[in-house]
Amino acid sequence: MSLVVQKFGGSSVSDADSVKRVARRIVETRRAGHDVCVVVSAMGDTTDDLLDLAKQVSPLPPARELDMLLTAGERISMAVLAMAIASLGHTAQSFTGSQAGVITDEVHGKARIIDVTPGRIRSALDEGHIAIVAGFQGVSQTTKNITTLGRGGSDTTAVALAAALNADVCEIYTDVDGVFTADPRIVPAARRLERLSTDEMLEMAANGAKILMLRCVEYARRYNIPIHVRSSFSHKDGTLITDKPAEGEAVEAPIIAGVAHDRGEAKITVVGVPDHPGMAAQIFRVVAETEANIDMIVQNVSAAETGRTDISFTLPKSDGQHVVQALDRVRDQIGFESLLYDDHIGKLSLIGAGMRSNPGVSATFFRALSEANINIEMISTSEIRISVVTRDDQLDDGVRAVHSAFGLDSADGEAIVYGGTGR
Amino acid sequence: MSLVVQKFGGSSVSDADSVKRVARRIVETRRAGHDVCVVVSAMGDTTDDLLDLAKQVSPLPPARELDMLLTAGERISMAVLAMAIASLGHTAQSFTGSQAGVITDEVHGKARIIDVTPGRIRSALDEGHIAIVAGFQGVSQTTKNITTLGRGGSDTTAVALAAALNADVCEIYTDVDGVFTADPRIVPAARRLERLSTDEMLEMAANGAKILMLRCVEYARRYNIPIHVRSSFSHKDGTLITDKPAEGEAVEAPIIAGVAHDRGEAKITVVGVPDHPGMAAQIFRVVAETEANIDMIVQNVSAAETGRTDISFTLPKSDGQHVVQALDRVRDQIGFESLLYDDHIGKLSLIGAGMRSNPGVSATFFRALSEANINIEMISTSEIRISVVTRDDQLDDGVRAVHSAFGLDSADGEAIVYGGTGR
Repeated sequence: MSLVVQKFGGSSVSDADSVKRVARRIVETRRAGHDVCVVVSAMGDTTDDLLDLAKQVSPLPPARELDMLLTAGERISMAVLAMAIASLGHTAQSFTGSQAGVITDEVHGKARIIDVTPGRIRSALDEGHIAIVAGFQGVSQTTKNITTLGRGGSDTTAVALAAALNADVCEIYTDVDGVFTADPRIVPAARRLERLSTDEMLEMAANGAKILMLRCVEYARRYNIPIHVRSSFSHKDGTLITDKPAEGEAVEAPIIAGVAHDRGEAKITVVGVPDHPGMAAQIFRVVAETEANIDMIVQNVSAAETGRTDISFTLPKSDGQHVVQALDRVRDQIGFESLLYDDHIGKLSLIGAGMRSNPGVSATFFRALSEANINIEMISTSEIRISVVTRDDQLDDGVRAVHSAFGLDSADGEAIVYGGTGR
Repeated sequence: MSLVVQKFGGSSVSDADSVKRVARRIVETRRAGHDVCVVVSAMGDTTDDLLDLAKQVSPLPPARELDMLLTAGERISMAVLAMAIASLGHTAQSFTGSQAGVITDEVHGKARIIDVTPGRIRSALDEGHIAIVAGFQGVSQTTKNITTLGRGGSDTTAVALAAALNADVCEIYTDVDGVFTADPRIVPAARRLERLSTDEMLEMAANGAKILMLRCVEYARRYNIPIHVRSSFSHKDGTLITDKPAEGEAVEAPIIAGVAHDRGEAKITVVGVPDHPGMAAQIFRVVAETEANIDMIVQNVSAAETGRTDISFTLPKSDGQHVVQALDRVRDQIGFESLLYDDHIGKLSLIGAGMRSNPGVSATFFRALSEANINIEMISTSEIRISVVTRDDQLDDGVRAVHSAFGLDSADGEAIVYGGTGR
């Protein structure tokens, strides 16, 4: 008998009917002979409704109380799901993050899991119950206050519990059939990937694929937990994310996993930076103090006649104005000339573990973009990824050109909407 | 500096605006120099909405999960209330029943408080916070599962916390100005009572006054906690329920506290019971097994010619059909002739601690009912109470007649609706 952790997001439990559908799915797994621990997000719009309520009483709610409020969302969904399972003739017990032993640091709103001590979950499973755990939440080790894990938190809860329970697999149920070679909304011929390494999934997630959050994949890699991303609306296999070799599989993995894209970044250019040692360090120290996450960085070759250079970097649009203001405040101190802010960029990334040993990949990549008349503004690479920044209105053409150039198009593309998994 | 526990029911926190109003009230108390611990119920219709949701997925939800679901209600209200207080410039921290140390037995849906260990509340108060505690909920000592206290549970939470914290007073905020000499909807001239002993309040509560639940008053009496019942819509003093003598008060308490009435009971008559020893015991053992709460009992004098008697008793209407069915199943075994079920009765009770030493009370009482042509069907008494059962359509006339006969009518009655305090 194996132990399966199943995670259902808010869109899978949006109303009573979908809760009942998810309950049937869980009971099927139980009846197939597996122990089942379920992680569930808040139902549909519950979180937004609670946030609205908070705004009505306070312009800036204290973070501790906001976490207390939001965690009511999973409390509702998990109890209702346990009831729906009970009405199918199986016993289920629901547990808050705190009861499930999800111990975090004390950073409200984006707490990190420090430890998982799932004694009560283990007992519930041993007694034959299906265990339902509230995703997205935990309890601070130091303050004993209730915390939330931030975006993608329920996926992280699921993987962390799978690791602590030594589960055989962590199934993440979502509204698409798995991870695709590209966003099917842009590339109708995109194919579902059967397997993906955690390195590849990390690069996909970090470069715009919204299907799994980075933290969750990092956790799975560290504890060697296979993640099965699959649809809650069908019984088809999804995508298995694992570094374990497939059984009986001797052939090499495909060179390319897929093409990711990201419309969520903006570019800031610091113009006319005096070309002295330490200038870049000063600039990025100011940026770091805003806690913005910088992605790509390009520094132009210094113009000999002026002794000045331009430094460009990309970052999430949501951090953009904040960083511009911070830099503007130190303009005289650093001595740069001006700031440019550009939020009409797109990022395109080609990802594949096989790149390491296939030197022709970048040539094919740039030829494909060139033939599609895509202008490249910035480039960055890792061992298993090449990324470029383009104009945002050229991004879709670029994704299709690259996807096609690497032979990723399927004969009959599945027309499936590629979406996020909620929190 | 004194410590005040304030309890606000669901009708006092029905929406964002009323939460803000309650927050101002709490902050006023804090600014007056008191430590404040607040107990709050779920907002407005939240509990009903959650029950509806449960019904949509399960005809008979497991009690453990129903408690888990319903306790989301106070989690929302307490966090939102803490936010509203914070936006007024005071710090507040909210605590679940479990965090507040409300330890109960394991009976889901109607758990009893076993102990209160308010270490975290005490710390929060010592650090200068206003503490907000979820009413109606606790955690089982044995199973560690979340429990709810059942009807009136939030009042009980408030009094139990007041006792554990050694508070100076427990203020129960409601939608009326206090405890009245009678229901002002029936007796417009009813007066607010300034003080009431716990014995009197217990009799009032047990005999139909819905303003406080029995359990909460019992708790207050046992731990000697004064309860101040007052309106959340005005700053007037309400009714103080206490056995401590008022300062400087040497005069005797009034003979009569008030007139309570109850439309919630039904009468069952077991007709033609063989008049042997042990018959009544058999009947009431059957009734006890249904867990119904019996109130008044009358046994007629046995008719010599038949050797049979009739036994009548009253009980909550909600238990009626259930008990009739249970008795019907043992008709042949006990040998009675038939069962009568009458749910058109009303109960009228006159309550006053001064009755003990004023023998004329019952004469005045029965004369008043007689002059109003009220037919009396059953009578029961305690040291400080006389109750009668009448036809339900005569009840209001009876209440007015008795109220008037004991000089309780005020010159200018306050027209205030007399209602429950929610849960």
